Amino acid sequence: MMFKPFLVVASLLASTAVQAQAPNLFRQNEIRIGVMPTGRLNAITDVQGVKVGQVTIVQGDSVRTGVTSILPHGGNLFQQKVPAAVFVGNGFGKLAGTTQIAELGTIESPIVLTNTLSVAAGIQGIIDYTLQQPGNEKVQSVNAVVGETNDGYLNDIRGMHVSKAQVLQSILQADTGVLAQGNVGAGTGTVCFGWKGGIGTASRQLPANLGGYTVGVLVQTNFGGVLEIAGVPVGQLLQKYALKDELNHTPDGSCMIVVATDAPLDARNLERLAKRAFMGLAKTGGIASNGSGDYVIAFSTANKVPHQPTATVLPVQYLHNEATTPVFMAAIEATEEAIINSLFAAVTMKGKAGRTIEALPKQEVLELIKNYKRGKAQ
Amino acid sequence: MMFKPFLVVASLLASTAVQAQAPNLFRQNEIRIGVMPTGRLNAITDVQGVKVGQVTIVQGDSVRTGVTSILPHGGNLFQQKVPAAVFVGNGFGKLAGTTQIAELGTIESPIVLTNTLSVAAGIQGIIDYTLQQPGNEKVQSVNAVVGETNDGYLNDIRGMHVSKAQVLQSILQADTGVLAQGNVGAGTGTVCFGWKGGIGTASRQLPANLGGYTVGVLVQTNFGGVLEIAGVPVGQLLQKYALKDELNHTPDGSCMIVVATDAPLDARNLERLAKRAFMGLAKTGGIASNGSGDYVIAFSTANKVPHQPTATVLPVQYLHNEATTPVFMAAIEATEEAIINSLFAAVTMKGKAGRTIEALPKQEVLELIKNYKRGKAQ
Amino acid sequence: MMFKPFLVVASLLASTAVQAQAPNLFRQNEIRIGVMPTGRLNAITDVQGVKVGQVTIVQGDSVRTGVTSILPHGGNLFQQKVPAAVFVGNGFGKLAGTTQIAELGTIESPIVLTNTLSVAAGIQGIIDYTLQQPGNEKVQSVNAVVGETNDGYLNDIRGMHVSKAQVLQSILQADTGVLAQGNVGAGTGTVCFGWKGGIGTASRQLPANLGGYTVGVLVQTNFGGVLEIAGVPVGQLLQKYALKDELNHTPDGSCMIVVATDAPLDARNLERLAKRAFMGLAKTGGIASNGSGDYVIAFSTANKVPHQPTATVLPVQYLHNEATTPVFMAAIEATEEAIINSLFAAVTMKGKAGRTIEALPKQEVLELIKNYKRGKAQ
Amino acid sequence: MMFKPFLVVASLLASTAVQAQAPNLFRQNEIRIGVMPTGRLNAITDVQGVKVGQVTIVQGDSVRTGVTSILPHGGNLFQQKVPAAVFVGNGFGKLAGTTQIAELGTIESPIVLTNTLSVAAGIQGIIDYTLQQPGNEKVQSVNAVVGETNDGYLNDIRGMHVSKAQVLQSILQADTGVLAQGNVGAGTGTVCFGWKGGIGTASRQLPANLGGYTVGVLVQTNFGGVLEIAGVPVGQLLQKYALKDELNHTPDGSCMIVVATDAPLDARNLERLAKRAFMGLAKTGGIASNGSGDYVIAFSTANKVPHQPTATVLPVQYLHNEATTPVFMAAIEATEEAIINSLFAAVTMKGKAGRTIEALPKQEVLELIKNYKRGKAQ
Repeated sequence: MMFKPFLVVASLLASTAVQAQAPNLFRQNEIRIGVMPTGRLNAITDVQGVKVGQVTIVQGDSVRTGVTSILPHGGNLFQQKVPAAVFVGNGFGKLAGTTQIAELGTIESPIVLTNTLSVAAGIQGIIDYTLQQPGNEKVQSVNAVVGETNDGYLNDIRGMHVSKAQVLQSILQADTGVLAQGNVGAGTGTVCFGWKGGIGTASRQLPANLGGYTVGVLVQTNFGGVLEIAGVPVGQLLQKYALKDELNHTPDGSCMIVVATDAPLDARNLERLAKRAFMGLAKTGGIASNGSGDYVIAFSTANKVPHQPTATVLPVQYLHNEATTPVFMAAIEATEEAIINSLFAAVTMKGKAGRTIEALPKQEVLELIKNYKRGKAQ
Repeated sequence: MMFKPFLVVASLLASTAVQAQAPNLFRQNEIRIGVMPTGRLNAITDVQGVKVGQVTIVQGDSVRTGVTSILPHGGNLFQQKVPAAVFVGNGFGKLAGTTQIAELGTIESPIVLTNTLSVAAGIQGIIDYTLQQPGNEKVQSVNAVVGETNDGYLNDIRGMHVSKAQVLQSILQADTGVLAQGNVGAGTGTVCFGWKGGIGTASRQLPANLGGYTVGVLVQTNFGGVLEIAGVPVGQLLQKYALKDELNHTPDGSCMIVVATDAPLDARNLERLAKRAFMGLAKTGGIASNGSGDYVIAFSTANKVPHQPTATVLPVQYLHNEATTPVFMAAIEATEEAIINSLFAAVTMKGKAGRTIEALPKQEVLELIKNYKRGKAQ
Repeated sequence: MMFKPFLVVASLLASTAVQAQAPNLFRQNEIRIGVMPTGRLNAITDVQGVKVGQVTIVQGDSVRTGVTSILPHGGNLFQQKVPAAVFVGNGFGKLAGTTQIAELGTIESPIVLTNTLSVAAGIQGIIDYTLQQPGNEKVQSVNAVVGETNDGYLNDIRGMHVSKAQVLQSILQADTGVLAQGNVGAGTGTVCFGWKGGIGTASRQLPANLGGYTVGVLVQTNFGGVLEIAGVPVGQLLQKYALKDELNHTPDGSCMIVVATDAPLDARNLERLAKRAFMGLAKTGGIASNGSGDYVIAFSTANKVPHQPTATVLPVQYLHNEATTPVFMAAIEATEEAIINSLFAAVTMKGKAGRTIEALPKQEVLELIKNYKRGKAQ
Repeated sequence: MMFKPFLVVASLLASTAVQAQAPNLFRQNEIRIGVMPTGRLNAITDVQGVKVGQVTIVQGDSVRTGVTSILPHGGNLFQQKVPAAVFVGNGFGKLAGTTQIAELGTIESPIVLTNTLSVAAGIQGIIDYTLQQPGNEKVQSVNAVVGETNDGYLNDIRGMHVSKAQVLQSILQADTGVLAQGNVGAGTGTVCFGWKGGIGTASRQLPANLGGYTVGVLVQTNFGGVLEIAGVPVGQLLQKYALKDELNHTPDGSCMIVVATDAPLDARNLERLAKRAFMGLAKTGGIASNGSGDYVIAFSTANKVPHQPTATVLPVQYLHNEATTPVFMAAIEATEEAIINSLFAAVTMKGKAGRTIEALPKQEVLELIKNYKRGKAQ
């Protein structure tokens, strides 16, 4: 029995104190990232209709992995595609689906995040889901979008413990509303800046005179660099950063970033939006090291693209280039905060080969942040 | 028993008369494509060390699919990667592995071709193969390269009849030398210009004063347009071409093109080489229709890139830009001929839902080609 | 006086017999390229509103160059931009304006073609034109689109004989209707497949049930390879082709291709359209040699993008991906024919250093084409 | 006489106190950016052989512009090209030369920075320089690399006051060693985060065990966002940031970033390096607004690529992908600091239409930085 998978449905985790309060802990101390207000939940699900489902797979000593699925809307995604784009920050990764997104400008499946060696399970789960969905009886081609980061430090990744059934489960249980962060879903076994990373989320809302749009971000953090939180060089203060010395952590890993918005952006402007999310990663001190697969997937919920249009020419409404800047800025801020939220939500985890990755020492870090001053006077 | 998979090992097919002689039939009639001489076998395997393995899956009335694997060399591909690049002619496809190839400039796995809904099986087969290979005990990340075309007209593609074991089999039985063409491996169920397509191959060899390099191409043909063979508008003459009328075939489908060379090209020049292969597709009358996933994967066997280098700075030898033109030209010619070879090698096939796709009427076409003249005088 | 520029306004050349009839000569012999009907003039100007202006600069023994300007419409292009995209077939060229077109998806200036060392004059001419246009009094940034090929074999290119005034002149005299081809404008001194190249144009019109759209192409031909005309290997038959021997011509040079359409394509689908035009180049036997700068600029006249929108969200109508294939096919055919038209329109020219480039021997070639048969029976 | 150009040779400015000491002022207060040591001069010229030349053009009330030229080495750049790449952060700009750099992987000219409407002068200056250089008598094609930002707020940009002679002058006077920063050369009239921007530079040096390489950066700052200096939200503290209110500054503008290194990177890894420089821009609070043309040009001085190679296959030494991370990190840090240095070096300037752009209030900012603490406790 002891090796039977201990399946934790991530949405249940949302009720545990640490997971749910951690981001609040951060904001409770009146530390702010950026200048824009958050959406209601400070989550990707602030974009109306977006759903998230997570399956956490913790089994025995060595299995620490999972799946996080993001659904642009709750309907039939294949029949009602959404405009989308991908920006490759650093392509050392296995994101499935990129060339078709670039060519056709749409996403037609859930976006599944998991570990590096489970991308096939992710694709298979998406295909099964899509083929079985009512209305898709004649579908013979599905562009599955599956991202990954490598959780092999804590997880027995070579064991490939994610099944297509678990992928399917994450999709089916996806929901709107509050979502769990930290050691859940695809973030169960990830490591970020040498501390425990995981799933994080945040959002920004534009003022009405700039369109009132919402930008929501979800990240799977598994990368490194020199951590900065709200500009404070926490990595340096804690003496833990990339290239510090050989005993220190490698910055390699990866970061998957999913950006949702209800602003009516076309695929071209969504690619630009995706690039701005990468700027948010930079602001946390990420360095996109050689081995880091850093990708941004962006989609808009404002226009649907029908698989079988009733006419060849479709009327749509798109944001003019000149009105995109506030949306871009929102993506930068939300991404930066989502990454920091993943660190504040994550908890210490033991895993493969007796290894432990500590959680960010949150109280200590909060004190550091509040007391930190620069320069000679110090 | 009647539904048990009837597994045909493709390399055996090479001994059947039609498969092996069809390309000869074409050249026997002294019809030539291009101005350059072929390699010894007129096959991708003319590039020294390149291996091809194929598994043909024909089962009952409706299963018509398979796997074709191309190995840049016979050693440990993960430990000894090859410089590589991808050109996306039209990205309506699911080619796995593209972003990492673009980022790192290498391929570290066999290249597997199969059907659209079996990409996950392809990835899984490659990962299993790589993890199990001696020397790869610590590998935790594999960039599986899996291409596909959609054989769903003849094949019960929704049944997903390709297993990872069959993928593994195709890799393990890969060999140098003559390879089967036509209705084999990943080309078992494909359709090209409305006739039966499949696997095709060809090669070109440069004269010694231009480096003496070989360029070999393998294609999985499943696309449409207005067929031209050696410049003769065969599609028009046979009244079968894209957009002719509603009763005619759709040009949608796809074409996977794999280009191998022993010319010492780096990743940047391999991307340029890949683009030239797409020009070869154009010369057959392919139109890269909206629904066609047309990709070129190019690699060079001249320099190996070690996974674990003994030094950070590596001495290599690369072809100067100015010397690339003949290699480019060879890729155009070999691709054009490989596509035509796939048509001449393929045979009529019955499949799903009682459908039949006829082989190109070869004798009739040869007569057409030999007698065709243009313009008023005719 | 003998060195004073002898300025030939290209539109006047249209009245000379050879220039205007050459393409007709080709079609008069009932040789056809492709399966689709041409537009009324078989010219880029079949796309309503598109204007072309050309200035031919022939001076003394050595100046053989010029300017060809294409205006997507006759209004204020800066204030009413057009959706646009560029595809780089081979980037050994100096096309100005590419990154902004890719970023913003629009063209806001005339498209100017000239010689390699006169791009600065082209930019300056466009900027002067734009700044002076009524309504542009506050404009401080102009994305000038200037393409080029290298006419340095016949032209004293290092002398930089194109002035910004001549660029301006070509823009100001741009007109709809018939346009001159061959040794005119930016094609005055160019060489194609070893014969005299120049400006060429062609168009295709879709049937009403596929939208009735027009695709028009204009090319500046200055490249090489193994010439094929309507599939006949003319280059081989005339023993003049790339890499034949050292005494033969270099395939280097370049080809600029401008594609106009009234189909309502957005920038993403215009990039795809541009890629198809490159396939048309391939069908003429072009090989995109290392030294060839082969670019395609595509724009649509169907939607205008205002510089100063009255609202941030704009209603537009775009063609669904699924309806693009016929437009793609039209671009392939029109490009192939435009290139051939440039050869049939061009005449023998003497230039720099006593060099002569012969025109394609048209009657001989027509006979070759009409009598050519392939294979053993011949 | 009063309107005669007042030409200030930028290298002379280096002797003025404010210009030269400003960056020192920043570091004198022991405020640090990043964790890596600078090169000897903390300048792009720390990369051996790199030269910079600047011409500052200040004339009457309204001319505030100039030219900054960067030479990868002091020899014949056309004959001895350098591996290079461009990353487009946001393509709303007119950077000339990009497609050829991407295709051939080299730069063959000085890199010239100037204002948006003077790119043609920049190209012309480079062509004149190259054609006239000994050894280039037969050169007929030059890929001029010219970047720009829009200094039209302070400068009469429509007057196009940069001549090709001034471009040539900037190239000819380029030198190694200390270089002027702030209101000089191409930064004479630029605005950054609402304060006076300009030219900035910085460098980082790797430890010997990571290769000992140097990465140097030069920036022309003319962009906006929410300024952060060493992580302190200076823009917020001074109530001056993008989208704050309608009275505040626009974030539009642009940033040109030039990255030099002696690490032996090939073009592919230089493109990756360029992308990291963009991350440095993000760390200063730049948001790559819609109207910002943010480009990075990166080159390596380690391998030269001969225009006329003596053999077709060239032996080179390149850094393995796995060893690139420290070089990437250096580019991030050096870019961030170069931007901040441009602000600390710049001085208040009056210009066109009686407008004034204030310098960053340096003492006030230094105090802010030193005293700033975050969160509730404050």
